[in-house]
Amino acid sequence: MPKRKRQTDGKRTEPTTRIDRRVVLGGMSAIVASALSGPTSAMALPEKDQQSRPALAGARLRKVATEEAFTIPEVAEAMRDVARRGGTNLDLKVLNLIYGATPDTSTSNRNTAAPTLLSRLLSLDATRISEMDANGVDMQVLALAIPGVQMFEADKAVALARLSNDRLSEAMRSHPTRFAGLACFAPQDPRAAVLEMERAINRLKLNGFLVNSHTQNVYLDDSRYWPVLEAAEGLGAPLYLHPRAPSDGMAAPFRDYNMDGSIWGYAVDASTHALRLMLSGVLDRFPRLRIVLGQMGAALPFWLWRLDSVAAPGSRAALRNKLKPSEYIQRNFAITTSGVQDPQALRFCIDKVGADRIMWAVDYPFQPTAPAVKFIESAPLSDQERAQIAFQNAQQIFRIAK
Amino acid sequence: MPKRKRQTDGKRTEPTTRIDRRVVLGGMSAIVASALSGPTSAMALPEKDQQSRPALAGARLRKVATEEAFTIPEVAEAMRDVARRGGTNLDLKVLNLIYGATPDTSTSNRNTAAPTLLSRLLSLDATRISEMDANGVDMQVLALAIPGVQMFEADKAVALARLSNDRLSEAMRSHPTRFAGLACFAPQDPRAAVLEMERAINRLKLNGFLVNSHTQNVYLDDSRYWPVLEAAEGLGAPLYLHPRAPSDGMAAPFRDYNMDGSIWGYAVDASTHALRLMLSGVLDRFPRLRIVLGQMGAALPFWLWRLDSVAAPGSRAALRNKLKPSEYIQRNFAITTSGVQDPQALRFCIDKVGADRIMWAVDYPFQPTAPAVKFIESAPLSDQERAQIAFQNAQQIFRIAK
Repeated sequence: MPKRKRQTDGKRTEPTTRIDRRVVLGGMSAIVASALSGPTSAMALPEKDQQSRPALAGARLRKVATEEAFTIPEVAEAMRDVARRGGTNLDLKVLNLIYGATPDTSTSNRNTAAPTLLSRLLSLDATRISEMDANGVDMQVLALAIPGVQMFEADKAVALARLSNDRLSEAMRSHPTRFAGLACFAPQDPRAAVLEMERAINRLKLNGFLVNSHTQNVYLDDSRYWPVLEAAEGLGAPLYLHPRAPSDGMAAPFRDYNMDGSIWGYAVDASTHALRLMLSGVLDRFPRLRIVLGQMGAALPFWLWRLDSVAAPGSRAALRNKLKPSEYIQRNFAITTSGVQDPQALRFCIDKVGADRIMWAVDYPFQPTAPAVKFIESAPLSDQERAQIAFQNAQQIFRIAK
Repeated sequence: MPKRKRQTDGKRTEPTTRIDRRVVLGGMSAIVASALSGPTSAMALPEKDQQSRPALAGARLRKVATEEAFTIPEVAEAMRDVARRGGTNLDLKVLNLIYGATPDTSTSNRNTAAPTLLSRLLSLDATRISEMDANGVDMQVLALAIPGVQMFEADKAVALARLSNDRLSEAMRSHPTRFAGLACFAPQDPRAAVLEMERAINRLKLNGFLVNSHTQNVYLDDSRYWPVLEAAEGLGAPLYLHPRAPSDGMAAPFRDYNMDGSIWGYAVDASTHALRLMLSGVLDRFPRLRIVLGQMGAALPFWLWRLDSVAAPGSRAALRNKLKPSEYIQRNFAITTSGVQDPQALRFCIDKVGADRIMWAVDYPFQPTAPAVKFIESAPLSDQERAQIAFQNAQQIFRIAK
């Protein structure tokens, strides 16, 4: 069982915040109201940002979204090349969806969305910020869209990681109150990756890293990637472990019925990857490494009892791990709500891992923003839990200036 | 969202039953007490069974365990042959564990348990019943141990399925109040499987079927297995979809750190298999098919919101399914608590799928009985929920005479 549990007695807090806000706003829906009202924090905003966010003290919830995607034209072009080349890698389906190299005949409704998706990914300015404003999102924590630079040849990956991080840094300087950023790196060249990670934190002042799961079908527990984990730990910067479609050695059952991606493949990939980090003992080697998992922790909170029962040190499946899975979750992990807007699942995760380990996310532009905003505004949470999950934890974990 | 939800307002019932029983039993622990007290139902018991279960009206909880394993010597010998032959199939690890053909050097604590495990699997009489009595288990719903007859050549599989079902039927006749049984069949030969399924229900009066996930790496959504699904539906008999280690096309990341089996491979295999049944549209073809999933539904209840959001008909990943995943769960599935003795996960599942779809299980002899008994006796449930989960649902779903 987890060391720290919250509210396991079953009490649930009534959503008083939401009701109060409704009273204040005289019957307007919370969504419309927050889009109109803007943020309340007293930061020194660039002029153009201030105009879109009139102050309304105490009336709205600050929201920092933590799994938000962007791309740059150079990466998009390189992705098109990868997609054109083809192959059996399951991620080619999502590449075709985003970059539109080949019509995806298996899903008639996918391609129609493709141009919009790409244009929204490419925006680091007006288009993106106007959508944030319309939905009352104060800040996006940006990262290069799936699968990052991890499908390119090493040299190209290193160069594009650097370019992407530079552009991200520029966008953050242009909109310091609206964008934070997670750096990408090229695990294909661990030495270069470490140099880029250092540059991203120390020089570009980015807020952490995001890696799209496996690289060339190898997971981060492999010793070739230990320098990357060591760098993240040494820099004190969290590593967002974003899913990809399952690696080639696990792909077969996910090739049918569109099971490769957001319906199921991502869930299996991310949870399996996180467990490999726990069970390999790699988190004993890098005990201060901080890992962020999306999708409500890829259901690992739901599995914690069983994982502990089978894989606590000394038990059946434990080989190398010094701690219980639940102890790694408490020590090394934070989770986000990306893609799971279920108040029951959120409450379960708060009970299991604590409200201080959960961050709100939208997964823009792959998921619509409005329902994610409605979720964090209306889920039955205490005021403190709502503030922690909506922005406070993100500010603390990603070291975002308040 | 599921059509039917229970207690989503967050109220949790105090465990009054447990306290009452403690008062009645004058301070004895619930476990010891139930071992001493025996069942209360007024069935006509064979004499030897009656002796071990003195009546104590109203004082204890009837318990029917629904995922309990056995084997017969002929199957054990055939399993040893499979294990000796070797290969890359991930289930060879568990075969070596159970049948001890080859020392499993990767897990020092496994082999010491092997002789006991096998002797307990082989018992359909005194050894097994005395363990049930010692723990207050009224009835086991038995099924041939993992991986059933599914790794044998077709002819051998057909013959051993028949023999195993005959022995199971004999054990049930010898101990009609202690054993119910799920038939095995050989998907390798679908025609013979259908004949055996009919014989098992109509002639042997078994209570349903258990299949150990994929057969020769093919899942049950494949059209070659539709006759089997049609037979289960037509016979009105539930099909327990028991996990195996992941199929060869998914096995690679599970080959390290003992991740093949109960720690993680089973979870991924069973949930992926169940989702294939939903997303393939096979459950629209056999709408009255009843499937039972262990391990708290292999976490699918936790994922329901997301599954519906991505795979509801008309949405991104939906190709062939006519219903939402949550609607299939409500219409076609029941779940058991095997291997997950977590009151929070149980409450979550009750809220998501309903207390009338959840059955208690031990997974004897792979999991210890005492903690599973303690779990169902002490979990914070209403009297009605506890009775449903401990025995009523099993009696209804598996048509067990009361």
